[in-house]
Amino acid sequence: MGIGEDFITNTRYTGPVETDQTRGLNQPPMEDDFSGTIIPLPDPDAGTIESLDISVAIESRESIRKYLDTPLTIEELSYLLWCTQGVKWILEDCSFRTVPSAGARHAIDTYLLINKINTIKPGLYRFLAFEHSLGMISEDKGITDLVFRAGMSQQCIQESALCFIWVADSYRMTWRYGERGFRDIFLEAGHICQNLYLSAQAVGCGVCAIGAFMDNDLNHLLNIDGKKKFALYMASVGKVPGCDER
Amino acid sequence: MGIGEDFITNTRYTGPVETDQTRGLNQPPMEDDFSGTIIPLPDPDAGTIESLDISVAIESRESIRKYLDTPLTIEELSYLLWCTQGVKWILEDCSFRTVPSAGARHAIDTYLLINKINTIKPGLYRFLAFEHSLGMISEDKGITDLVFRAGMSQQCIQESALCFIWVADSYRMTWRYGERGFRDIFLEAGHICQNLYLSAQAVGCGVCAIGAFMDNDLNHLLNIDGKKKFALYMASVGKVPGCDER
Repeated sequence: MGIGEDFITNTRYTGPVETDQTRGLNQPPMEDDFSGTIIPLPDPDAGTIESLDISVAIESRESIRKYLDTPLTIEELSYLLWCTQGVKWILEDCSFRTVPSAGARHAIDTYLLINKINTIKPGLYRFLAFEHSLGMISEDKGITDLVFRAGMSQQCIQESALCFIWVADSYRMTWRYGERGFRDIFLEAGHICQNLYLSAQAVGCGVCAIGAFMDNDLNHLLNIDGKKKFALYMASVGKVPGCDER
Repeated sequence: MGIGEDFITNTRYTGPVETDQTRGLNQPPMEDDFSGTIIPLPDPDAGTIESLDISVAIESRESIRKYLDTPLTIEELSYLLWCTQGVKWILEDCSFRTVPSAGARHAIDTYLLINKINTIKPGLYRFLAFEHSLGMISEDKGITDLVFRAGMSQQCIQESALCFIWVADSYRMTWRYGERGFRDIFLEAGHICQNLYLSAQAVGCGVCAIGAFMDNDLNHLLNIDGKKKFALYMASVGKVPGCDER
């Protein structure tokens, strides 16, 4: 039996499962603390974002790997972060966001490789969803090249205005669901990335989802252990020519 | 090491991977043949669907578990299937759809439990994406109750107008990506389900994603082996009161 089939077989539900939650353990924090430079983001006010019909957005979605050199504004970045992971409200240690999550666990953190955003220095950041701000991890000028190489030298990473890197903090999910929670983590990264594909169109951007990368290298860059916390999905984003220009 | 961590560790990329594709084997069919009663679906013409702004759809999305008794029309069903798995074009044995897929593999099939759709008999169906039609699997009147029980008696399944049941045909993905392809399968079911959440709002419906079910029971109902082909995600759908009525 292969690794995948093994995983599927061994995470089947056949009856009630004992987990740290049923054992009475406290749930882990909804988000890790961040210490360092914090960059507040403007309100993700959709009012300033171009209107786009949902059917048109779904119909015209495609993976786009070539981008203009034009930077995104911080308002556009704020909007994309809101659409993918925005916290709408909090209730009893659960957050409710613009995407669904099993048991409202929300076990995914958004890291960003920023190449071209107006008023934000290029570098590596973590999105702090609860305060809607960015925590600065690295301003190292070589970071783009390192992520590009960890991303198996996919050109869209280097050309992008920014790359989303979604990281699982698996215990937030497994605390409640045990090992099956690993399924949910992947399902939910897909939810998040689809919202990115759709909302990016409203700010004149194209997106390319990236599932293939050198895991150890990327996890090392993000300073996560690759076991309890691991990168599981990426997406490059950049401005694309308008409909008139294509 | 737990099952999930094991899966993550053993599906890391550390260099080129040998797969059936690199070994020169032919790719599997893009979709299994269906023999039986086929129900054509009307064109998923978004022109008949209410306009809905993408930002509003994303902002107002929530998981809804209570539905009205009102059926969906076959046109509305056609639209939801198009938004979640519609084939836009085909190129060299690859399909390009309304959702992205690694290497355009599209290893997910949509099964439907239909309870209340105008002009379609209740029962179990498989969506045939390439001809945009439904293949009838079962008209057994007891099927709703069986799916409800396999779905751990979640009331939303019984009350729904229909339930999506997403099934992986894993070899379509692993042929190209090996065991890591199992990651992609889950990611992509999330993409699909997010489009359902968003597009359902345009036809006055609410959605609830379901990741917890008795795998063996559900796979048995769908007549799939639960190994190479397995159910991995569900979502109940039904009409909800309009904004005026809520």
